[in-house]
Amino acid sequence: MLEILDKLTRKPQGLHEQLENVFKQMFENTCQAIEQLDDQTFVEQTWTRNDNAGWVVGNNRPNMVYVDRALQGGSVFEKVGVNYVAIEGEMPAGMTFQKTGALVTADADQVTGEKGASYFATGTSFVIHPRNPMVPIAHVNYRYFQIGDGTQPGYWWFGGGADLTPVYLFEEDAIHFHRIHKDVCDKHSSSYYPRFKAGCDAYFRIPHRGENRGVGGIFFDHLNDRSVQELLTFVKDCTEAFIPAYMPLVERRKDMAFTPENKHWQHLVRGRYVEFILTSDRGMRFGIESGMVNTQSVFNCMPPAVCWQYNDQPDSGSQEALLKEVLRNPREWL
Amino acid sequence: MLEILDKLTRKPQGLHEQLENVFKQMFENTCQAIEQLDDQTFVEQTWTRNDNAGWVVGNNRPNMVYVDRALQGGSVFEKVGVNYVAIEGEMPAGMTFQKTGALVTADADQVTGEKGASYFATGTSFVIHPRNPMVPIAHVNYRYFQIGDGTQPGYWWFGGGADLTPVYLFEEDAIHFHRIHKDVCDKHSSSYYPRFKAGCDAYFRIPHRGENRGVGGIFFDHLNDRSVQELLTFVKDCTEAFIPAYMPLVERRKDMAFTPENKHWQHLVRGRYVEFILTSDRGMRFGIESGMVNTQSVFNCMPPAVCWQYNDQPDSGSQEALLKEVLRNPREWL
Repeated sequence: MLEILDKLTRKPQGLHEQLENVFKQMFENTCQAIEQLDDQTFVEQTWTRNDNAGWVVGNNRPNMVYVDRALQGGSVFEKVGVNYVAIEGEMPAGMTFQKTGALVTADADQVTGEKGASYFATGTSFVIHPRNPMVPIAHVNYRYFQIGDGTQPGYWWFGGGADLTPVYLFEEDAIHFHRIHKDVCDKHSSSYYPRFKAGCDAYFRIPHRGENRGVGGIFFDHLNDRSVQELLTFVKDCTEAFIPAYMPLVERRKDMAFTPENKHWQHLVRGRYVEFILTSDRGMRFGIESGMVNTQSVFNCMPPAVCWQYNDQPDSGSQEALLKEVLRNPREWL
Repeated sequence: MLEILDKLTRKPQGLHEQLENVFKQMFENTCQAIEQLDDQTFVEQTWTRNDNAGWVVGNNRPNMVYVDRALQGGSVFEKVGVNYVAIEGEMPAGMTFQKTGALVTADADQVTGEKGASYFATGTSFVIHPRNPMVPIAHVNYRYFQIGDGTQPGYWWFGGGADLTPVYLFEEDAIHFHRIHKDVCDKHSSSYYPRFKAGCDAYFRIPHRGENRGVGGIFFDHLNDRSVQELLTFVKDCTEAFIPAYMPLVERRKDMAFTPENKHWQHLVRGRYVEFILTSDRGMRFGIESGMVNTQSVFNCMPPAVCWQYNDQPDSGSQEALLKEVLRNPREWL
């Protein structure tokens, strides 16, 4: 991958190389931690694209590259979708960035961004769907975004976070996941965890359901309130927090007994996950609306087996109803 | 239901009663035709709402009513979701209709519609997910929409259509479905079938996949190029076409043999169905963005068991690959 990104990127070489080291380490280390627990291994596919040419498998001096890894049908993990992406491009006709970083249609009068701006984006994401419904679903994604050469104030930022979606609620798991992320945040600023915890609850809301996707974690976007080097260190620490935050929960729950009813409930929870991704997730909407990303790579985040059911509200007093209560009214875990 | 809608509607009483008769007959007759083939029956739930109050089950002098029916886990039909809806309301703050009927955010400068317009909408929809993968998925929905009292030119219209989504392609099934709908269209205008067939192909496109949802049928929206009485007769004929267009296909295919691999492919096809509904369907986006509809009712269209899989492209030369080819390049069936 280093070779690909080296061809891809322009200046500043130093920063882009550092970014690659951080995201690549997260990519490799997290895949390794997952494979250690499972009987299956990841299958990898690299997609590259030159300007307006279609996506091809392989490496042909691209300006966009996706490295996808998928682990499917494992004993512990039913599906893990992983992407490592680096894109150097120009916004397609009719789309632009606002200075906040939001992607908008360029013909609305209120747009204040740059039309046809060139940009650079890189990051890594994991969506982990365990087989056992007692193991929570997890998502982690960190990314860097830059407009032009990134030298204008506000024309670069970091984004991302990590969040947990339990199918059955174990309070101690939520507390552990938040504790590890708070410790990392506190190393850099006491304001970070409260802000990013609230940001996570606000972002992973499914408005039409009046529910959050899960018990949260941290999430931030357009983060550029310090120097790029300081924030790179912060994001590096975040990427390293994911394994100790999540893997102990997998080990603790993966061999617990469960019923077909528990499994069905997991499939319903995954349905909400799909609803969030397809109606609200910024990365997915960017992908769908810009037409600039490789669809197969973007849809690598989707769960395997999923269900919808009319009248899926659980009986009051049940474990499932307790989860819904927490999803409707996000808690402070620490 | 007549009683509910009678309370709900204002003038012109005559038209609204006629609309109700058409949509109610479709609702009842299609449910009956489905129940005749299955060992399960529909469960019905009525939701009503008064202005800003929350949704409640029952009948309490509402200005919005949903009658939902769901048949789940049947021998022939794995899930059928049905809605009958009548809503009399005002657009929520920040949303308006364009004169074309499109729902848009009201604060964009280019909006030419009425802010906070009152409207009336009624219609019936069916989404039918068979158990046997050889039986195609079907969707039918017809609706009437009116802004204000509907007397201004262009302030009322009909919309809807019927379309078929095969999991395995039987050309004669697609031809039969199109033939029945063309015959109904031709009774009213020779221009209707070509326009509405093309409209259906254009509407049920999943842009990020470069595929259509199925083999189409007919679809129209903002139809008001004749008198309301003439178009009511046309729509009535369309509602009556659905049973002869679809039910013979169910009877022909429901007892065919299939493998677990066929069933898995059905779940992947349903995944595309979900992608279309959540990213592109107008009714769903109206529901999600306006916050004005009962979420449970709107999500009654979702399939039961669904799958996503990384690298889900079928082997070339397979039956599954043949279907993909037709989805990528919609055909003229007649």
